[in-house]
Order: sequence, then structure tokens, then C-alpha cells
Amino acid sequence: MISEIPSSVFRDRRSRLRERLEPLGLRFLLVSKPIDIYYLTGFRGSAGVLLFGPRQACLWVDPRYTLQAREQSQGATVSETREPFSRAVARWLRRHRPGVVGYQDEHLTCAELGRLSHEVRASKRHVVVRWRPVGFLLDELRMVKDQWEVERIRAAGEVTAQVFREVLPQIQPGARECDLAAEIEYRMKCSGAEGPAFSTIVASGPRGAWPHARASSRRLQRGELVILDLGAILGGYAADMTRTVYLGAPTRRARQLYESVAAAQRETVQQLRAGMSGDQVDTVARQFLAGCKLADYFTHSTGHGVGLDVHERPRLGRGEQATLPAGSVVTVEPGVYIEGYGGVRIEDTVLVGEKGPEILTPASQESWYTG
Amino acid sequence: MISEIPSSVFRDRRSRLRERLEPLGLRFLLVSKPIDIYYLTGFRGSAGVLLFGPRQACLWVDPRYTLQAREQSQGATVSETREPFSRAVARWLRRHRPGVVGYQDEHLTCAELGRLSHEVRASKRHVVVRWRPVGFLLDELRMVKDQWEVERIRAAGEVTAQVFREVLPQIQPGARECDLAAEIEYRMKCSGAEGPAFSTIVASGPRGAWPHARASSRRLQRGELVILDLGAILGGYAADMTRTVYLGAPTRRARQLYESVAAAQRETVQQLRAGMSGDQVDTVARQFLAGCKLADYFTHSTGHGVGLDVHERPRLGRGEQATLPAGSVVTVEPGVYIEGYGGVRIEDTVLVGEKGPEILTPASQESWYTG
Repeated sequence: MISEIPSSVFRDRRSRLRERLEPLGLRFLLVSKPIDIYYLTGFRGSAGVLLFGPRQACLWVDPRYTLQAREQSQGATVSETREPFSRAVARWLRRHRPGVVGYQDEHLTCAELGRLSHEVRASKRHVVVRWRPVGFLLDELRMVKDQWEVERIRAAGEVTAQVFREVLPQIQPGARECDLAAEIEYRMKCSGAEGPAFSTIVASGPRGAWPHARASSRRLQRGELVILDLGAILGGYAADMTRTVYLGAPTRRARQLYESVAAAQRETVQQLRAGMSGDQVDTVARQFLAGCKLADYFTHSTGHGVGLDVHERPRLGRGEQATLPAGSVVTVEPGVYIEGYGGVRIEDTVLVGEKGPEILTPASQESWYTG
Repeated sequence: MISEIPSSVFRDRRSRLRERLEPLGLRFLLVSKPIDIYYLTGFRGSAGVLLFGPRQACLWVDPRYTLQAREQSQGATVSETREPFSRAVARWLRRHRPGVVGYQDEHLTCAELGRLSHEVRASKRHVVVRWRPVGFLLDELRMVKDQWEVERIRAAGEVTAQVFREVLPQIQPGARECDLAAEIEYRMKCSGAEGPAFSTIVASGPRGAWPHARASSRRLQRGELVILDLGAILGGYAADMTRTVYLGAPTRRARQLYESVAAAQRETVQQLRAGMSGDQVDTVARQFLAGCKLADYFTHSTGHGVGLDVHERPRLGRGEQATLPAGSVVTVEPGVYIEGYGGVRIEDTVLVGEKGPEILTPASQESWYTG
């Protein structure tokens, strides 16, 4: 069992956010992304808005979530509203006149901001709210994981790796991609996960050349590479892992592709350190594969942050200048994709620790072929 | 097996969109929501943007999706880009100077629109693009389902109902909520669904008073109501169904609650007709429950559209003036929620046919108690 997150942790997160708001000249921030509301208050509903202020925070929910919000949320006054959130928030703003209010422009839609502005102006009293976008402010805060978060990602990673080990004997010619995906997701849930963090990818043979193929009803065949990309979500936190399996005794081509990607992945994980930029990490993988004459087939970036979102900050890709803080958790997932033939991708979720990298998805890469 | 959607259907959808754009004074529309891109072109990736024009359409994808987009998409020229989409789109706009361009303000984030505007202006040549929000334009188009869509929702509804029937004997005291949810989702996948359309709700006893509770590790107990809210996604289309089960011989209170909600649901489905407004449908359910003195415990709206999204237009709730067209598919799902005790919700996915309503989630409501 994972331990419950103490109130003090949520309080610390709110303090850290307040410290970040001050230099931005913001006293209030409208938090509209549900995962960020959970991060700050503990409320895990799928709808609601949080107006986060210097001494207080107001959480509006619709009646579906009133009981749940009162039970789960901390550090916020819960208000139930049957109106659109924009109207409820606007009423509060007209009364309290906070001046400048930050908003999550990377999450809030144009229409939602339009409704908020409109509702605030729709008052007889002259009230001006200046809306200021805060970009990835919350995402940056969430980049450094505390021990409670690492515990959850580790647990999610262990379930993910364990399920892969259990399902490995079933990855055989004749099995359907979708049945393997169903089996994987079922076992995740039975192992205590809330479910898969994303739709499990099982991509066999030529379908493996589509990096984001879904599992189809195609049957696996001998002499094919099969990409399995899976991740459990547990205690709200995701893990993300990919393994590639060859069905049969590998051909020279399959072996060369597999070993190149595996070595590129190992090398990148080993070099991963706090303070590197996303671009630097990406370059390690990319140059390694260039040395194998495979750079042209590596068509995506090297990795991404993992946490409450399965894809979050930081990004490990070309031109990403932001550096990895100690305590961040990222994937390392080089891959090569060859049209008409198939693909190889190997991915782990890795903690960027003070002392170096630690793999959180501990599934062996040894038994990658079946014959 | 469901039949493949012919090219002509996608072509018809694009024609219908073009007809809608003209009265809005728009020749071009930027489609940023992946599900809408699928609806118009057949491309089912999770990322991409479509610039939809009078004679042509351009689909930009990142390299992960190039092969998939070339294979799946129709009626659009596929361009691969390694740049942010905003930059690629802006370059096209600077070259073609389309004047006014519509955008999906209910989907596009403030930051994305900001980047698009910025990139267009970042040219030496004087190019002006006037961005015009189109609200729920695509959602309105998608409200009327064609036969191919109804076929898919019906198939999803049949899998959903079938899985419920299969799992019903396991809904017993001692079973864990999360194990039942795992079983349900596994069986959906084994029955040919892509998976669950949303995280399956199994909410027992007092947890049933949270309308959107997730399945937890709580064990079901005799003498409790259990709400199960499930829906498969099949061929891209969702179904949505809720049943409530009582464990044991129902008490008078449980029976009264159950029968009131069941009758309210039946009555609302029976009265459902094309041409009614969302508010009118909602009023049928609400007044029925008011007659049972339960109106205060019905804390959400009566239903919502179902299709490519599990929650889409139209909404069946208070004040919703938009009318239901023939061919729309909606849920009807009254419920009552009593703090500390539990809840009852009964939901079906219903086709609003020319001749009247047709239930697409055919699971009996008869055997709702176990003792």
C-alpha cells in the first residue's frame, strides 16, 4: 500500500506557488486544470476551478462534486455552483477587486477566457480585472517531485514492469494485439493500479513503424518485431515504459536495430544528470543512433516528464533549453521506425536523482526474442 | 464486425462543413481538435492540425504520425512538420493570405491562439489574418449521426450491455469496486471494443452519493446500493450506461428510491422526441422526481450527447434551449444522491429517431437486487 499524502505536503505546494506568484506581480491565480487543482488541494474531481489567493483559495465545483470536494480538498473554501464557473468566479472577482489575475493560458480555452472577461464586465459597477497568462507555471512547479510523488511513480513503475513480465510468455505468434493490450490493462487494475495511464500500444510487424499505433485486431506473426508501450496510473501518478520483442530467432537486421536502440537508451540513461538541458539529453540519444546510421529513423524526441500527467514538463527534445532539476522524473525512449518493416523503441521512466539516474520501470531488456 | 466507413461519408461531412462556413463569412477553418480531424478526414492520431479550405484542406502532423496520416486521411494534403504547428500553419497563411480564418475557440487554448497570431505577424511582409471564433460549429455538425455512426454507437452499446450482463453475477458482497471495474474493462476489450470510453465507476454504499466517484478498493457489503457506470468505445464511438444494484432483499427505502428513478428514466426516454429542447427533456425527469419528493437529490443534468466524445452536444439540462435533431444520440440518466447513504442512477444511451426513441444500451433493469 502507498501511504497517504500528509496535509503538510499540500500546504508546502501552496506555499511554493505563492512564492512564485509574487515575482510575477500576481496575488491571485485562476487554476482551471483539474490535475493542478488536485496537486494543490487534494481534490480529484474532473471539473472545478480554483481561485488561488494570498491567504485563501476558493474552489468552485458543480453539485456532482460537492461532497467529494468537501471530503478531499484542503486549504480551499468549497463553493457549490449550478451556474457556469465563469459566472461564479466573476461574481467573486467583482466583489473582491483583485486587480491582476493570472490564468493558465496553456490550459484555458479562448472561449472560457472570453466568458470570464465578459462576465466580469457585465456588471454595473466599474470593475477592471487584468488577466495575465502564466504559461507553464504550475507545470514547472510540478517538475520537482517530492518523496510522496516519487513513491507513487515508483509503485506505478513496478506494477508496469511486473505486468510486462507476466504477459511476456503470451507474446507469441497468433496472439492478437488487442487481446494483449486487454490483458495488460486488466492485470494493471488487479495489481492495484487505477488503470492504464494511456491506451496501451501493441504494434506488431509493419504497424510498429507507426510510433503511436493503437492495438488493433492484427495477429502477431513469427519473424516480426512487436512494440509494447504501457504504463499504469497509481495513486494518481503515471509510469511509462516500452519494450520491443522479436518473435523467433532474430535476423541480423532485427538484431542490429534492437541492439543499437538498446545501447542508445542505456547510454542516455547513464548520462542523465540534473542540470542538463532537454536538448543535451536528446543529443546523446540522437548522436548515438547517428553513429549507427539510424538517425533518420529516429523521428520523435527522446523523452518527456512523467507525473500526474503521463506527458508533462520537461521535454527532452531538440532545442529544449530548460534544464532538468534534481527530483524530476522523465522518460528516455529512443526508437527507430522503418516503413513497411517495423520499429524498435525502448523506454524507461527515470528519476533524475541527486546522485544520478534511477530507473523506475524495472523490467529486464534481456529476453527480447522468443526463439 | 462493423463495416468500414466509405470515403463518400467523409466527403459528405466536409461538404456539410463547407456549407456552414459560407454563411459565417469564412472560407478557412483551423480544426485543432483531434476528434474533429478524424470526423472530417479519417485520420485518428492524437495530434495534428487541419486547415480546412474551400477546395482543399491541409493536415500537418509531426513525424510520429506521418505514415499513419498518409494511410488514413482523405480529402487533405498531409504535411510532416518538425516545427511547432503554429509555425507551419503561419507560414501557409502568410503565403496564401486567406483573410478571415475561423478557429475552434472552445478547444484551442489561449496560448495556442497567441502563438498562431504571433507567428503570422512575425513576417516582414504585411499580412493580416483576422481570427474568428466558431464556438461549437463542429459539435453541432456532429450532433446528427449518420448510419455509420449509429452502427458504431449501437455496437458499443451492445458490448456495454453484454459486459454488464456477464459481470452481474459477480456483483456480490465482498467484491472490491476496483476488481469489478477491471473485469468490466477487460471484457469490453475482449469483446472487440477499443476499451472503456471513460474510467468505469463502481460506487458502493455511501460512495454512491458521489455521482462521479471512481472505483476504489472498497469492498461491497450486503444491504448497500451499488452504482455501475460503464461504456465501451468501439470504432471510435462511445456508449454510456448506468445500472444500480442492491445487494440483498431491498429495504423499503432502497426500493422506493430505485423505483422512482427507474420510472423517471423510463418516462423521460418515452417522451424523448426530435424537436424538444434540452431543457424540456430535463424538465420531464426533474418534474417526475419532484413528484416523488426527490428533486433536491437530483443534483446533475438529465443527459448529454454521445458519439466520438462520450460527453458532447446536445446537453439535456436546465436552460438548454437548443433542440434535439432527429438522428442525435443522447443519454438519459436521472439519479438521486443521499449523503451518508448512497445513490441510484439509471442511464441509457438513446437514439432520437424519426419515429421515436430507441435504446442503444439494451441491458435489462429487472434484476436490480440480489436477494
